[in-house]
Amino acid sequence: MQDVPQLVAQARAGRPRAVARLISLVEGASPQLREVMAALAPLAGRAYVVGLTGSPGVGKSTATSALVTAYRKAGKRVGVLAVDPSSPFSGGALLGDRVRMSEHASDPGVYIRSMASRGHLGGLAWAAPQAIRVLDAAGCDVVLVETVGVGQSEVEIAAQADTCVVLLAPGMGDGIQAAKAGILEIGDVYVVNKADREGADATARELNHMLGLGEARAPGDWRPPIVRTVAARGEGVDEVVAALDKHRAWLEEHDELTARRTRRAAREVETIAVTALRERIGDLHGDRRLGSLAERVVAGELDVYAAADSLVAGVTGVSRRGG
Amino acid sequence: MQDVPQLVAQARAGRPRAVARLISLVEGASPQLREVMAALAPLAGRAYVVGLTGSPGVGKSTATSALVTAYRKAGKRVGVLAVDPSSPFSGGALLGDRVRMSEHASDPGVYIRSMASRGHLGGLAWAAPQAIRVLDAAGCDVVLVETVGVGQSEVEIAAQADTCVVLLAPGMGDGIQAAKAGILEIGDVYVVNKADREGADATARELNHMLGLGEARAPGDWRPPIVRTVAARGEGVDEVVAALDKHRAWLEEHDELTARRTRRAAREVETIAVTALRERIGDLHGDRRLGSLAERVVAGELDVYAAADSLVAGVTGVSRRGG
Repeated sequence: MQDVPQLVAQARAGRPRAVARLISLVEGASPQLREVMAALAPLAGRAYVVGLTGSPGVGKSTATSALVTAYRKAGKRVGVLAVDPSSPFSGGALLGDRVRMSEHASDPGVYIRSMASRGHLGGLAWAAPQAIRVLDAAGCDVVLVETVGVGQSEVEIAAQADTCVVLLAPGMGDGIQAAKAGILEIGDVYVVNKADREGADATARELNHMLGLGEARAPGDWRPPIVRTVAARGEGVDEVVAALDKHRAWLEEHDELTARRTRRAAREVETIAVTALRERIGDLHGDRRLGSLAERVVAGELDVYAAADSLVAGVTGVSRRGG
Repeated sequence: MQDVPQLVAQARAGRPRAVARLISLVEGASPQLREVMAALAPLAGRAYVVGLTGSPGVGKSTATSALVTAYRKAGKRVGVLAVDPSSPFSGGALLGDRVRMSEHASDPGVYIRSMASRGHLGGLAWAAPQAIRVLDAAGCDVVLVETVGVGQSEVEIAAQADTCVVLLAPGMGDGIQAAKAGILEIGDVYVVNKADREGADATARELNHMLGLGEARAPGDWRPPIVRTVAARGEGVDEVVAALDKHRAWLEEHDELTARRTRRAAREVETIAVTALRERIGDLHGDRRLGSLAERVVAGELDVYAAADSLVAGVTGVSRRGG
């Protein structure tokens, strides 16, 4: 068993191993998960969470890395959570993903973590917010959450950030691909990366059109900017940071920051509650209860709804005993 | 409100409108759903449920229609539930799907129902067994459940029948496609349809190889037969019926029929219970409860697990009041 208060203290003192250990505890659904989350609760809520998403090949990792550089120059501590549907790095060591972010690997002001979105226990849906909370409590000023915009859960993770950045790159049908993945609606800031390539103007125009950015909006509404970057050379990155700052200021001005975080928390709490109830039903599986209910259904003595009621009552009982 | 006992009596007397109305009630999750299921429970369990699945284009509808003809010749009452991921016929009238099964549309001994597997309320996962139960209680001797073997839920519906028929047709990579869809493991009877086409031998050989049918089995184990048909001309259909009869006899001999039905009922009860719990959590969504819990999480006063516990306790409370 880990000494959670000690780990938390070490994490807050800037010890990357402690941060890594805490993330492993929350990611792996360890028996100490609840203890960790309870310890972190009063410490979190300070970090600004930025989601970055886009189709494969638009340069998300490069853009993330460039943003880290920009935030580090401004003296901020940065956490990076790179969510990959096929990441082999799940549960790996913090700073383990040296290839992706090699230039930041030795910077003590940067925490980098890769996570597989398709893991055990329903994948990242519940683990990502918890890992973000660890990075937040550890004192990160900014947490960048990078997800591939290909699956619903990955897109949702990015959409639930304080500010969501959608990246595109010039290329035939990229906008259509993004639209298909459902990521076009969720951006607070849009980035056309690889803007030195042919077609960048067309992509920006297409995006502008698809988003209806030319249309009138109510005064006070947020109008997502389209920023052009060549992230590999750091071009346009300061403009992205400026757009993020502007969006954050807008959020705070309109009481939207707390509203967004509350929605995010509500979703997280709901997911955990549903998972808990589901697991309790799963526990009854090995039990005689479900088996004998099913036998009575087959015998025609009980209808399926009455049987389900009985199962729900059983879960309720477990809940009362367990809670 | 419908008079459920009257509808059930009419359905048992062979009135197709009553059967259609009952299926609509269970499919649409009407307030009378529970009443219907309770009324049907003691009447169901007599029909033999045959699942038919396979990739698009293998001739499932034709094969189903040919099986209906064969069973009708034997004097049996037949129900057909055609599950289609994109069926426009969901909620449609019984006998409404005249194109698919036109030759049986006017036969009072045949009930045909199309159902969309991707509907509201999580699709067919829970509605299919209930529709099967209506057809069963209405006096069908055989219920044929035809599903496209493309999605997990469709495949599961077929796999949960008393006997599952997997159809293939000659053609490049068909076996591989079927394997990808996960339908190769679930067959109790395999049918190579369109067996007059080139490549039928190769498909049967490939299937035989993939299933390891040449390998030794324990005595008493079921060895799935491979039957060749040209369903459009009715060729081989009697052999399919014979294979189904043989499998049914094997199931009964090995106490597997009740075991399968019990597993199916257990799954159904579990699905309904999870859905019910989920809905109760959903009900709390509009409530102040989840909102205020989330606010306390954002304020750092409560961790997400403690909040989820509180939500689960709330559901439990609802359950006690509601039950």
